[in-house]
Amino acid sequence: MKLATLKDGSRDGQLVVVSRDLTQAHYATGIAHRLQQVLDDWGFMSPQLQDLYDLLNSGRARHAFPFDPAQCMAPLPRAYQWADGSAYLNHVELVRRARGAEMPASLRSDPLMYQGGSDDLLGPCDDIVVPSEAMGIDFEAEVAVITGDVRMGASPEQALDGVRLLMLVNDVSLRHVIPAELAKGFGFVQGKPATAFSPVAVTPDELGEAWREGRVHLTLQVAWNGRTVGLCEAGPDMHFHFGQLISHLAATRRVRAGSIVGSGTVSNPGVEDAAGRLDWPRGYACIAEKRCMETLQDGAPRTGFMQFGDTVRIEMKGLDGRSVFGAIEQEVVPHGGRPRVEAQPAGGEGRD
Amino acid sequence: MKLATLKDGSRDGQLVVVSRDLTQAHYATGIAHRLQQVLDDWGFMSPQLQDLYDLLNSGRARHAFPFDPAQCMAPLPRAYQWADGSAYLNHVELVRRARGAEMPASLRSDPLMYQGGSDDLLGPCDDIVVPSEAMGIDFEAEVAVITGDVRMGASPEQALDGVRLLMLVNDVSLRHVIPAELAKGFGFVQGKPATAFSPVAVTPDELGEAWREGRVHLTLQVAWNGRTVGLCEAGPDMHFHFGQLISHLAATRRVRAGSIVGSGTVSNPGVEDAAGRLDWPRGYACIAEKRCMETLQDGAPRTGFMQFGDTVRIEMKGLDGRSVFGAIEQEVVPHGGRPRVEAQPAGGEGRD
Repeated sequence: MKLATLKDGSRDGQLVVVSRDLTQAHYATGIAHRLQQVLDDWGFMSPQLQDLYDLLNSGRARHAFPFDPAQCMAPLPRAYQWADGSAYLNHVELVRRARGAEMPASLRSDPLMYQGGSDDLLGPCDDIVVPSEAMGIDFEAEVAVITGDVRMGASPEQALDGVRLLMLVNDVSLRHVIPAELAKGFGFVQGKPATAFSPVAVTPDELGEAWREGRVHLTLQVAWNGRTVGLCEAGPDMHFHFGQLISHLAATRRVRAGSIVGSGTVSNPGVEDAAGRLDWPRGYACIAEKRCMETLQDGAPRTGFMQFGDTVRIEMKGLDGRSVFGAIEQEVVPHGGRPRVEAQPAGGEGRD
Repeated sequence: MKLATLKDGSRDGQLVVVSRDLTQAHYATGIAHRLQQVLDDWGFMSPQLQDLYDLLNSGRARHAFPFDPAQCMAPLPRAYQWADGSAYLNHVELVRRARGAEMPASLRSDPLMYQGGSDDLLGPCDDIVVPSEAMGIDFEAEVAVITGDVRMGASPEQALDGVRLLMLVNDVSLRHVIPAELAKGFGFVQGKPATAFSPVAVTPDELGEAWREGRVHLTLQVAWNGRTVGLCEAGPDMHFHFGQLISHLAATRRVRAGSIVGSGTVSNPGVEDAAGRLDWPRGYACIAEKRCMETLQDGAPRTGFMQFGDTVRIEMKGLDGRSVFGAIEQEVVPHGGRPRVEAQPAGGEGRD
């Protein structure tokens, strides 16, 4: 099933069930008002939501209304945990190379993961608000799961059983803030502003055969200012699967229901073309990678980071060719809001 | 006023108001069930809780009952954010020296802070559950605040206005896990297990004159296995005050109501005794510091980390000599539970 949270002026919004084709929605009122409630009591509530979902898909839900992604908050507008892995090693290699940072020695055996802020998660069409373009504004297109309760010490297989829902993520990053911050040794605080999520969160069965071995075997589409820049395969190059990422997080503590665990930027390794030149035919899911590709190819980056007014679009089509999660579509705006266009005074035309 | 959350089998517990002397409690039912609700709507709800608090202190609350810290969850049993600063530079210097890590160049101008896990916060008397003693189990006694909404770009003074409540913290650390984890560059995940909080959270006015310039000017008492090891002054050596820490966190994003921001381990610098030998008369609020003190004095650490069965007690007395927050009193137990003492078979003594 597909679940979303609609803006209603409150901090947590209103839970709705969304039809498989993303056209219709139905309030989950009577079952639960908020997604966290469902995650807290999944065994009891999810079958009721599934019934409503089936009714909605069959066109028999009485109070269905058109689904508008622009009215969505993040499926969890605030969460008790947001931990983001770096499961695509090609991303780690490219970005660290671009930063001149060392590769962790344990890269292939020990997942790289950071703890993110989760008090203020963005809806799919919310603005990316940043104080300054000089901060090096970048998107990072990812897949994430929301977990149920996972016990301390859970194996990767046990942890994978804790996956309740999947979403897409834009893990906004401030590239010129990050190097100095990471140099302090305690991870990200200022370098990762509020993270945005897809309109709907879906249960794994929505992905059909594309959900296997703890990975999503589909193509992540990324467009920057309307131009497609990435058609990245999310499956094959995810070195650690979601069960491994959650298990890593649960090594020394319990992971509680409603925890969001991200894949890290989806990334596919480069290939040599006929002329022996390294190329990345799948494109990129963050600008930092593009800049590193350019550096490797031509000695220097040509592409700048995002400017105010730039847009990013992130979407994933299912095996049936239809959007699974709806699209993240965001615009970068300066902190303090968009410059207002002043209304022209009406002058002497006699209109009041 | 003083607020606590009592265990009731649910994930979020029941909000109670606690008398100033920590002897009596009263359910906040009718006002709010959970502390997060109060933080979400502080202006409306806190005066109602204050009225109940006044009634309770005057002995006129009808349904008051004895307050038992052992029945407490963390004031926020799960939170949308837990960000911990390192505002006592002496702690940073000692612990980094002990780890052989470099000091951040910007130590005195740019707060060091890490994003912690907040999906599973511990009550004051909950066990510290750790998979292995070999992980280097340590306590860290700290002060923390819970914030209201703080806007992006808030100045330290504006951010300080966002402080709603204060608590004590035991930021449990796994010293032998941390070096390899931090070497990966993305901060703490496994090195910081679940964090514990004091029985009550208090509004700043509870501290009287001891709350000034964004700092708590009181002595933090730390006892390990019943022996006092720290009588650390929380005020003077807190280089960055809470407003500065919150402002740091809010530089590139909003900080939302219910965010917990920690001071870092309370720590006072060493002084030279008459013989010219460096000494730390205030003791220590984490074992890692003690080990570094020993190394600086005698060339090597003598003190080991915590063992299963060890206890830690953290408390702070107000200017009136009475406990402000109640005490954190925890025992370290192995994951999987305390080893059970097998009952002796009754043998032939005829007892059943």
